[in-house]
Amino acid sequence: MPIARVHRISASAPNDVSGIETAIAAGRIDPTGVVAVLGKTEGNGLVNDFSRGLATTALTLLFERHLPKADAAQICLVMSGGTEGGMAPHWIVFERGEGEGGASPSLAIGRAHTPALPFEHLGRVAEVEQVAAGVRAAMRDAGISDPADIHFVQIKCPLLTAQRIAEADARGASVATRDTLKSMGLSRAASALGVAVALGEIAREKITDAQVGADWSLWSGRASTSSGIELVNHEIVVLGMSKSWSGPLAINHAVMADGIDIEPVRAALARLGLGASGQLDVAQRGKLVALLSKAEASHDGLLRGHRHTMLDDSDIASTRHARGFVCGALAGLVGHAEIYVSGGAEHQGPDGGGPVAVIVDRSN
Amino acid sequence: MPIARVHRISASAPNDVSGIETAIAAGRIDPTGVVAVLGKTEGNGLVNDFSRGLATTALTLLFERHLPKADAAQICLVMSGGTEGGMAPHWIVFERGEGEGGASPSLAIGRAHTPALPFEHLGRVAEVEQVAAGVRAAMRDAGISDPADIHFVQIKCPLLTAQRIAEADARGASVATRDTLKSMGLSRAASALGVAVALGEIAREKITDAQVGADWSLWSGRASTSSGIELVNHEIVVLGMSKSWSGPLAINHAVMADGIDIEPVRAALARLGLGASGQLDVAQRGKLVALLSKAEASHDGLLRGHRHTMLDDSDIASTRHARGFVCGALAGLVGHAEIYVSGGAEHQGPDGGGPVAVIVDRSN
Amino acid sequence: MPIARVHRISASAPNDVSGIETAIAAGRIDPTGVVAVLGKTEGNGLVNDFSRGLATTALTLLFERHLPKADAAQICLVMSGGTEGGMAPHWIVFERGEGEGGASPSLAIGRAHTPALPFEHLGRVAEVEQVAAGVRAAMRDAGISDPADIHFVQIKCPLLTAQRIAEADARGASVATRDTLKSMGLSRAASALGVAVALGEIAREKITDAQVGADWSLWSGRASTSSGIELVNHEIVVLGMSKSWSGPLAINHAVMADGIDIEPVRAALARLGLGASGQLDVAQRGKLVALLSKAEASHDGLLRGHRHTMLDDSDIASTRHARGFVCGALAGLVGHAEIYVSGGAEHQGPDGGGPVAVIVDRSN
Amino acid sequence: MPIARVHRISASAPNDVSGIETAIAAGRIDPTGVVAVLGKTEGNGLVNDFSRGLATTALTLLFERHLPKADAAQICLVMSGGTEGGMAPHWIVFERGEGEGGASPSLAIGRAHTPALPFEHLGRVAEVEQVAAGVRAAMRDAGISDPADIHFVQIKCPLLTAQRIAEADARGASVATRDTLKSMGLSRAASALGVAVALGEIAREKITDAQVGADWSLWSGRASTSSGIELVNHEIVVLGMSKSWSGPLAINHAVMADGIDIEPVRAALARLGLGASGQLDVAQRGKLVALLSKAEASHDGLLRGHRHTMLDDSDIASTRHARGFVCGALAGLVGHAEIYVSGGAEHQGPDGGGPVAVIVDRSN
Repeated sequence: MPIARVHRISASAPNDVSGIETAIAAGRIDPTGVVAVLGKTEGNGLVNDFSRGLATTALTLLFERHLPKADAAQICLVMSGGTEGGMAPHWIVFERGEGEGGASPSLAIGRAHTPALPFEHLGRVAEVEQVAAGVRAAMRDAGISDPADIHFVQIKCPLLTAQRIAEADARGASVATRDTLKSMGLSRAASALGVAVALGEIAREKITDAQVGADWSLWSGRASTSSGIELVNHEIVVLGMSKSWSGPLAINHAVMADGIDIEPVRAALARLGLGASGQLDVAQRGKLVALLSKAEASHDGLLRGHRHTMLDDSDIASTRHARGFVCGALAGLVGHAEIYVSGGAEHQGPDGGGPVAVIVDRSN
Repeated sequence: MPIARVHRISASAPNDVSGIETAIAAGRIDPTGVVAVLGKTEGNGLVNDFSRGLATTALTLLFERHLPKADAAQICLVMSGGTEGGMAPHWIVFERGEGEGGASPSLAIGRAHTPALPFEHLGRVAEVEQVAAGVRAAMRDAGISDPADIHFVQIKCPLLTAQRIAEADARGASVATRDTLKSMGLSRAASALGVAVALGEIAREKITDAQVGADWSLWSGRASTSSGIELVNHEIVVLGMSKSWSGPLAINHAVMADGIDIEPVRAALARLGLGASGQLDVAQRGKLVALLSKAEASHDGLLRGHRHTMLDDSDIASTRHARGFVCGALAGLVGHAEIYVSGGAEHQGPDGGGPVAVIVDRSN
Repeated sequence: MPIARVHRISASAPNDVSGIETAIAAGRIDPTGVVAVLGKTEGNGLVNDFSRGLATTALTLLFERHLPKADAAQICLVMSGGTEGGMAPHWIVFERGEGEGGASPSLAIGRAHTPALPFEHLGRVAEVEQVAAGVRAAMRDAGISDPADIHFVQIKCPLLTAQRIAEADARGASVATRDTLKSMGLSRAASALGVAVALGEIAREKITDAQVGADWSLWSGRASTSSGIELVNHEIVVLGMSKSWSGPLAINHAVMADGIDIEPVRAALARLGLGASGQLDVAQRGKLVALLSKAEASHDGLLRGHRHTMLDDSDIASTRHARGFVCGALAGLVGHAEIYVSGGAEHQGPDGGGPVAVIVDRSN
Repeated sequence: MPIARVHRISASAPNDVSGIETAIAAGRIDPTGVVAVLGKTEGNGLVNDFSRGLATTALTLLFERHLPKADAAQICLVMSGGTEGGMAPHWIVFERGEGEGGASPSLAIGRAHTPALPFEHLGRVAEVEQVAAGVRAAMRDAGISDPADIHFVQIKCPLLTAQRIAEADARGASVATRDTLKSMGLSRAASALGVAVALGEIAREKITDAQVGADWSLWSGRASTSSGIELVNHEIVVLGMSKSWSGPLAINHAVMADGIDIEPVRAALARLGLGASGQLDVAQRGKLVALLSKAEASHDGLLRGHRHTMLDDSDIASTRHARGFVCGALAGLVGHAEIYVSGGAEHQGPDGGGPVAVIVDRSN
């Protein structure tokens, strides 16, 4: 019977995988069972964020020391750049073990890779469909058939660079945007809608190219997508609850209506046994294995009726502003900032808000 | 009998004083009573933040339309640049009225201006002493003799620019630093120590030049200092409680031990009648007139044992990171982000933390 | 007979107009004759560049001290933000005097203001047409009928902010882009095409909305447009040679094919008597009254076959990169960096290049 | 008889070593002869520039595919981050071959690695001395005994991070600065003085800790130092002319007095046969193998009497401004921007200027 294990490990640099290496050496992590690694790395989370590529390289070299190259290549490496404010760079290693872990239903993990995305499909319905198919494949991999049992879908998607645009131009193909920074948002947007389609939150036929990255009334409550320069396809990880899995871990999710809407997250924590009126105490903090969240600046330039300036700041991208700000709100709730806040929540939760997943250890 | 009035007014741009103009026209603000205006403006809060100068110019022109130039010049204009994350640009107008306001003790306000600071004194004991004398003058102005009755001291202090350094060089005077960005921190540091000396938190003789901006074990729990390019002296505003003042407003303060230490702030709100287990509700939010706070990155690079990257980010100054992050934590507590978070908390609260003041309307 | 006078004056800050004040006091500048002031200010030249508003405010207050408000309001104030690299912040004051200045043909100046631009027209043919009409009006003001006699047209155009977009939305009008930074480029693009139409470089009917900011094969060799948050209409200044004007000043122009194509500028200087094989010597430098140029990153990501990274840098906008780089190339040619390089050359010269104007004093 | 070969190869990303791989496969580069690789990578060139680490990793993996690990580890990898403006990311591979290359004297290459630098020595005389010893070792490696025959010394030196400072603190050692960005400048400064000492430009006993990074009257005309987070020791490469080497390549150098002082560089090119009155023509450009330069903002805030704003810009570090600006000046001279401009010229050339080296192919 599968058992999901989740290891949150601090990183002292984008290529510091020593903590994972130590856990493998100590037998706490079995590399043959590693399904995915999510990483918060300290770059700008934008087009020229090389911390992600550096992290991916270090992780690949690490796993190739312990696994056949082909097996190492199967591990989803989802690097999300940007640790603004007090956010702590860290790895979240998702492992699939076997045995009788007791409590059930328990956390279940599934994964899938899509083929390479033609650059001209980026940010369009073609990408939505490719992602939806990938999410369904990942659900099958997790042994989850009911979309209601899925609490979070993490996707790493590609972006456009000046060179990739030129490549598409050379083929006479027209890309959705020539603005490389904007391409990150379009790719996140199409990928999120792909999740919504796979989970039955939005009917496929309701979505047109024009709505991608534009019609914010369309959104998924469980999608988290992140774009990076280091890949040209999609890497997909689904997280849910399943009776066919066992173990002490459980997952739940919430949707923040805006960047400071922490009460639904407080309720999700309570549903998993971590109820608290104020900030989580040290004991509760120890049971919180991982907190995954999205952040973005609301497109109307307002937060609860007051103006924010994130969209008008040409020195700092709005995604960087939003990550640090939302991380502060969530850290104030749970009592530490080693949390995974990923920027750019296009179609991920309502405009200005975003989905949040909490993974808790129910043992003792 | 003096009555303190505090008006929090949104700004749509650094020079948007229309909200204040409207309040004056409607008789809600009597310009002759205005003691100070605190402004959160949307610049970078660093050396080349021109949003502060633009705001100061607009406010000066506004008050000169309603007051004799000499009187307008008496109003302390403390512009704090930087509205990172969801922070809303806004003005906080402090007004001293006369009459019988009921409830007592009540919020009391005092102010003072220091002479111009010789650039070579910046960041040194000479600045500490000039500021301490200024705080005492402001306390006299507020009619407060016991330092224990002071809950917050807001100071705007000068900084060095390449030209000011050259000017000091020309006089053969040696400045404390040739790094203009660093000069902002040294000036905030010396000013905060000046408050600590005036409030009896630190004995003057305990402080040497070498400790300014270096020995973080020395701090004030009620100082908030902010540096700006647009002035060469200090503008000081003290806020406290006094039996000789009346009116519905009350102030209290808390000290955050780090950037996410919101429970002491929750307690301060409760002491003023705004107790809440989770986020303040809409009704409570309406009674919160103003929230003033400091933010900074801890110098050991850690937040509750986890690494933060604010000091290693050469693209975004740590003060910008810290403001947005701490604003998120506080906004999660009070339910909106039109709060005054000022960056650079050198000697203002413990390393990585900072003082917070809350002003509440006790009526009905 | 009109005589054009051009005064290049250094600024120590965005609101430092003391140099102009001094020149007026000394009688070197007659405020009643001032037609326009171009300013290079030290902000980021992007959406949240408040150095321009601060400069505009200071200049307005200055001229209102010397002229009736209505007359002061007629002066075109074209602030171009961004003094990257060694570029020196400065003012260029254009004055129209009367008398017999000798040499003819000589520099002639004309100006015009357009009505406010509805935000939904920004970046579209409607803006092209409004600007073309404005340029024709400015030519009439300069007394120049043949477009061939025009060497430079400087335009300051509006941009979109989150609030302006919301205002258009409220009216049910759809804006050309919701990306505020991108709106600056679209506005510069439409304004440049307006110049091309007015000067007969491109036929009006050849231009569609889709080509604005997209079809770089369309360009003007004499347009320089700059967008700013501080205005909602267009301010237009045309510079040319006219037999009906006299005086020692002459203007010529060149088109740089890319950011380092300085030889055409060397040739233009030679046409006005400043021939040099290497860098201009001190004597020649003294005769160069003003150098006005555009700069931008080529959209194919290449400079003479080598890759540049300006479009992939999410920390620094490409306009900031391009201004500093092109200023270096031109400063290497003329021997100082107090030159006016304005960013964003959409449809201003070929892709990656831009128009350059040189104004020389022919006396002695 | 040794023959120096220098290969300038474009990079499409920080980890794109395909051009070098291709040259090895084609036999143009013999990996066993590679002494050093200089790389211009597209990060910010500051503390959190991960493009350098990514490049170093890719180069190391490349050479380990062709050489024993121990030999690969001997190759000096000097990555200089920051390709502002139009600067093209590229590699410069320095190879030592054997045979009879004809022309002599010819370019000679030598290298050395220093031991790890204790973090508390960074920016102090102890670092100066460690570097001076390293330069002498590299001269011996090149077979050059007369310092007059050395035209350029490239050094990669370490910097401080929050963690490294904490590590020194833990040992009770006091570092020269706690400002990580400033530590880059101090390390470059001490390394440059080390070169000056080794080349006899400055007497060792003339240098005190207080002058490092402060007394700009002390400088080397041939040092180029660059700091990076990815190493804790120094990598040193010396370039000179030697009768004991043969081959078509020759090197010469110039010292720019400020950021636009290109005439001395024009003269150095002429000394190697590339005389030109204007910009180099295509044929001459083809003979220019490599151009290496330093850039920095002058500390008095002036360039030829006009103010620059590089030191007052808190959004963009002055090193980024200076690299893009100086690259523009040099590219205007040589006609392309695939040149190696390294930021931070503390004690490398006079204040605000810097050393420049040109390597030319004299064949046909």
